[in-house]
Amino acid sequence: MALIKNHDLTAVGWTYPEHILSLQPSVVREILKISNRPGVISFAGGLPAPELFPLDEIIESSKRVITKYKGDSVQYSLSLGLTALRKLLAERYSGKNEPTELDNIIITSGSQQAIEMVTRVFVEPGDTILTEYPTYVGALQIFQYHKANVVCADMDEQGLIIEQVEEKIIRYKPKMIYVVSTFQNPTGITMSESRRVALIELAEKYGVPLVDDNPYEELRFKGKHVPTLKSLGGDAVISMSTVSKILAPGLRIGWVNAKKELISILERIKQADDLHAGTLNQYIFLDFVQRGLLDPHIKRICADYGSKRELMLEEMERSFPKEVSWTRPEGGLFLWVTMPKHVSAQNIFDKAIARKVAFVIGQPFYPDGKTLNTFRINYATASKSDILEGIKRLGDILKESI
Amino acid sequence: MALIKNHDLTAVGWTYPEHILSLQPSVVREILKISNRPGVISFAGGLPAPELFPLDEIIESSKRVITKYKGDSVQYSLSLGLTALRKLLAERYSGKNEPTELDNIIITSGSQQAIEMVTRVFVEPGDTILTEYPTYVGALQIFQYHKANVVCADMDEQGLIIEQVEEKIIRYKPKMIYVVSTFQNPTGITMSESRRVALIELAEKYGVPLVDDNPYEELRFKGKHVPTLKSLGGDAVISMSTVSKILAPGLRIGWVNAKKELISILERIKQADDLHAGTLNQYIFLDFVQRGLLDPHIKRICADYGSKRELMLEEMERSFPKEVSWTRPEGGLFLWVTMPKHVSAQNIFDKAIARKVAFVIGQPFYPDGKTLNTFRINYATASKSDILEGIKRLGDILKESI
Repeated sequence: MALIKNHDLTAVGWTYPEHILSLQPSVVREILKISNRPGVISFAGGLPAPELFPLDEIIESSKRVITKYKGDSVQYSLSLGLTALRKLLAERYSGKNEPTELDNIIITSGSQQAIEMVTRVFVEPGDTILTEYPTYVGALQIFQYHKANVVCADMDEQGLIIEQVEEKIIRYKPKMIYVVSTFQNPTGITMSESRRVALIELAEKYGVPLVDDNPYEELRFKGKHVPTLKSLGGDAVISMSTVSKILAPGLRIGWVNAKKELISILERIKQADDLHAGTLNQYIFLDFVQRGLLDPHIKRICADYGSKRELMLEEMERSFPKEVSWTRPEGGLFLWVTMPKHVSAQNIFDKAIARKVAFVIGQPFYPDGKTLNTFRINYATASKSDILEGIKRLGDILKESI
Repeated sequence: MALIKNHDLTAVGWTYPEHILSLQPSVVREILKISNRPGVISFAGGLPAPELFPLDEIIESSKRVITKYKGDSVQYSLSLGLTALRKLLAERYSGKNEPTELDNIIITSGSQQAIEMVTRVFVEPGDTILTEYPTYVGALQIFQYHKANVVCADMDEQGLIIEQVEEKIIRYKPKMIYVVSTFQNPTGITMSESRRVALIELAEKYGVPLVDDNPYEELRFKGKHVPTLKSLGGDAVISMSTVSKILAPGLRIGWVNAKKELISILERIKQADDLHAGTLNQYIFLDFVQRGLLDPHIKRICADYGSKRELMLEEMERSFPKEVSWTRPEGGLFLWVTMPKHVSAQNIFDKAIARKVAFVIGQPFYPDGKTLNTFRINYATASKSDILEGIKRLGDILKESI
């Protein structure tokens, strides 16, 4: 009875749209594969340190919520997300000087989906998006998928250079501004308060939605809190975050905090897209917070990451040649290394892999792919002894190559 | 320092694309809200019966996999899904006469997302999709979102009327055919084997991707298994399913079974979209199957739904007037009631709600919204006493109204 049973690639001649075929698996993904080889000291990942996941507490929360909410804990649920979780997040924001109501929050399947859905609302093929240079590579994948034209403004240690932002807004009329304001992925840079205020003023003046992808906000282990874009800009800002860096990425729970009108639009997209985020996972996170475990857990993460960062910066001072500079983030997972213009990070990467140490080259984080002399280091995931050894090896390679 | 702090809808004048603004929360959603009012006997939901969720086993699986896989159980994971789970599904398909390899499977966040992603691959705005009349309302939401033109072929008790299919293919050149081949939502109809073969021949002849949304396949409690479209059509068919009806929808785990080329395209979309499906949830399902619990659990569900269906059909014979007809599905969750043309299901619904019994009117399942005299009944979720009482009340209303 069977007509065809083999899964032959050419048996059925379907055609696929060009913009989808041109979506390539990211370079970063390939680097991560290499860096995961046994024996390699990896500073490459965007991963939180796995030994810090509160596994026993997640088991306990999962048992508690299934016992408490019974069938509801694994049943279909609302596209906006669990009301109790949205309420809790709204209260958490409000308690941090960001007045937020239930209707300002929608739960998403991680903040990647949050970026994706918001992009779909504001960006049609051919439209322009303004970002930092460099920026989060996962966002660039989304923008490419939506056939957006990405233009950038440069950053310094205070974040986006505002003069460039206004110039590019006037010139390119972007439909959305996308930033990672705090402990940016990839650079670790945090935008200063005065830049934030200036950026919001521009977003308002020109009516451009300002998206703040803010997953690292709570991971500050040094320095003074900078008011969030959302707290400064209110309705002008669409803010998003996730449990990925403060609890566990595998739960795929994120959220958007934005004005109600937009949340109601995102609700309809979410419903058509995938109905709702995982019910059990939302309950687990809710329970974890309600039991008062989140803040102490974040403190533990910050202490760990902070001491690793300290150690790494000290070793970089000792081992890296003076021609190389790097950021000194006060939180988050990443720092950013800049080498002299003529030095290729790909070249350094190849040598590093030969000596079993890995990082992510900077190039894929630049929309134009034209900056070749930078790379990203994750200081949060490796052990302290690996940090010392890995940075020494990198220092040797840099000294030989520059 | 704050510029705006109120979440005023009009404070910032963003514009939204028309096709997104026109996405309305579904009528079905509204009906479900009404049907959930206390005291209402509801045959409305698309929900599995919650008392059949194996909650203790889900707790146990969650504990087992976190203990076994440690940090990996809640860490970032692959966009294709867990290799072990994909392998297990491939073996499960292969064991059921659908030769399937690892690379034919991608894990999605439920089968709603599977439909959405496949639609994005094949359908550009303005393209045509051919469906059954009526069809799954969640798919229609996706098609509307993608600005697709939906054309339909009628069904009889054997499923799609093939002559109409060919005529519509020639006339409208659809980019995709979407069917729910088995125990269809909403009608409960299963396409016969000869219709399946004929449909595949047309899909191949005209090179149109044939999507079989097949979540109810395993819920057969009567009659003889009909070979799946995928087993008959191989590469010509894109098949998708989910844990929603066989374990628990709140896990948001579904999958696509299709030729490798398409899976690799879907992988890239999934990565840009939301990185990957929930890691912990995938492990929970994997563990549940590996412990040998899935098949006995499906047997339990089938026994329960089968006996409720029996009871309901008997009571319908007794209570419904002879002018009304209905389907007698051999599996799944739903049956479909057709009244004389002049009778409005909305009118019957209003009367039913007044007597505290609910169902879903048929109209939203028709892409043209033009058929008004049908409605859907879920026989799986209500208790047996509610089934008897609810069908009696419905019978009274129908007798008074026809």
